[in-house]
Amino acid sequence: MADGEDTFPGQSIVTEGEWAGWRPCVGSDPFEDQSGPYYTRDEPDGSVVCAFRAERKHMNGGGFMHGGCVLTFADFCLFAIGREALKDVHAVTVSLNGDFVGPAYEGDLIEGRGEVIRAGGSLIFLRGIISTGGKTMLSFSGVVKKVGKRDAKN
Amino acid sequence: MADGEDTFPGQSIVTEGEWAGWRPCVGSDPFEDQSGPYYTRDEPDGSVVCAFRAERKHMNGGGFMHGGCVLTFADFCLFAIGREALKDVHAVTVSLNGDFVGPAYEGDLIEGRGEVIRAGGSLIFLRGIISTGGKTMLSFSGVVKKVGKRDAKN
Amino acid sequence: MADGEDTFPGQSIVTEGEWAGWRPCVGSDPFEDQSGPYYTRDEPDGSVVCAFRAERKHMNGGGFMHGGCVLTFADFCLFAIGREALKDVHAVTVSLNGDFVGPAYEGDLIEGRGEVIRAGGSLIFLRGIISTGGKTMLSFSGVVKKVGKRDAKN
Amino acid sequence: MADGEDTFPGQSIVTEGEWAGWRPCVGSDPFEDQSGPYYTRDEPDGSVVCAFRAERKHMNGGGFMHGGCVLTFADFCLFAIGREALKDVHAVTVSLNGDFVGPAYEGDLIEGRGEVIRAGGSLIFLRGIISTGGKTMLSFSGVVKKVGKRDAKN
Repeated sequence: MADGEDTFPGQSIVTEGEWAGWRPCVGSDPFEDQSGPYYTRDEPDGSVVCAFRAERKHMNGGGFMHGGCVLTFADFCLFAIGREALKDVHAVTVSLNGDFVGPAYEGDLIEGRGEVIRAGGSLIFLRGIISTGGKTMLSFSGVVKKVGKRDAKN
Repeated sequence: MADGEDTFPGQSIVTEGEWAGWRPCVGSDPFEDQSGPYYTRDEPDGSVVCAFRAERKHMNGGGFMHGGCVLTFADFCLFAIGREALKDVHAVTVSLNGDFVGPAYEGDLIEGRGEVIRAGGSLIFLRGIISTGGKTMLSFSGVVKKVGKRDAKN
Repeated sequence: MADGEDTFPGQSIVTEGEWAGWRPCVGSDPFEDQSGPYYTRDEPDGSVVCAFRAERKHMNGGGFMHGGCVLTFADFCLFAIGREALKDVHAVTVSLNGDFVGPAYEGDLIEGRGEVIRAGGSLIFLRGIISTGGKTMLSFSGVVKKVGKRDAKN
Repeated sequence: MADGEDTFPGQSIVTEGEWAGWRPCVGSDPFEDQSGPYYTRDEPDGSVVCAFRAERKHMNGGGFMHGGCVLTFADFCLFAIGREALKDVHAVTVSLNGDFVGPAYEGDLIEGRGEVIRAGGSLIFLRGIISTGGKTMLSFSGVVKKVGKRDAKN
């Protein structure tokens, strides 16, 4: 039940360092701030890529990335992937399903990509893949529900 | 992809304060430490209850609990609910599905309960409910896979 | 995407034979007619049980019940379990998730039970268990969406 | 819990009529025979397309395709999509999740396509799309488990 508000933070694209060319998504969503920081980048084909760098804090007791960490990023990805359909509305996650197929470790660059399956009047259906170094970590699908118009000022 | 290791931390039950009677699950899983702290309590009927107190850090940009926060707790719950079937093995989450049906806010006590649907030789199927104040927040189901014997020393 | 219409067929309860006390759900839904026949029975506690008898036609190439057969029955169960919430409306399945945990064979009596997790204004969340002889076959969850008022005449 | 056996029936490709160029998958799986008939066709890129023609018998009480009918076809598709990974083994469906995003009607040509997300030692993860006339009907994902070597004679 992330809220779309925080996926368009109006923040400036980073101009140097590891994240040059990426837009940081920080400062408006406390749980994402501590679980990230997350970044997005618009691709030439109109799609969006989401990413974050795996740190020690993202790991589980076994030394690889916690399932909840991967799903939190997937929930973030839903709203980034669906940003066009959700740009004028508030929305909440109704359903999120994930199949875990591979691990990630401290230091890995984690990327999320996906697509809108259908954008209906009230429900948006999406799916995506989270991967690291070209290896799939999670296959996910989700349903997001529009819950009201976004305030003109926001 | 949580690891069962951290669900049996051998920690002492809290004897006073809000969490008197609960066992804290902290210190061995970095992502759960920052997403929690989580607690478990054995019930007279043999089941387990999991819980945590919602703080500002668990919220999304809309001011209610982030979906990833709820799913992270659900992933923790899978291993607590399945602790008997998983007690001698390491295990990873294979699949986690969640339907979000109600919100939670800062200050709420969040509880998770569930059951093992089937404990097979390699796969454990579970389902559960996360709620606050008697109102359901998430209905979840998951599949956990045994990946090897736990070291005798652990 | 079953339609609620056929779950209240107004048919008489069977008075003799194997299905005495059960209400047959036949005659209005072609795919359920050929995949069933299905029966429902109201329990003293207000819940509903759904059932059918496994025949050769329900089996797969391996000689046990086909997954699609189990899921078709689960989809039927969603509407029977949610009949109170859906009694005045047409509705469609939005999402159905099933975990297969045990087989069934020709001649087995298959039963489905479940509960409404939340009945919202537009979406109904449900979950259930399909079993035979006390052994769980499928754990399922689903989301059903109301799509319009049922005609007064129906 | 379909069984892989029936997805490679060794049947001849149809040479004339509507299904010229397609391989019929009939005769070995009773539930698929009555829910189909299904066909597969190998594409130049190495992928497989699955298809069937919607008849009156596939409809629900509302006059559009029954959710169970769509999921039965999706379960068939899992084994066709994963045929390379499953060619020497028997396998069962462990999990199948479907999001229904659009209807189909009597007379429509229904097609299924998808991909293997990961083929592990015991579990195969897949996802796909079922569509008609270029419009998506169902987004699905599934997990299939290998349960034993296929007999050399089969």
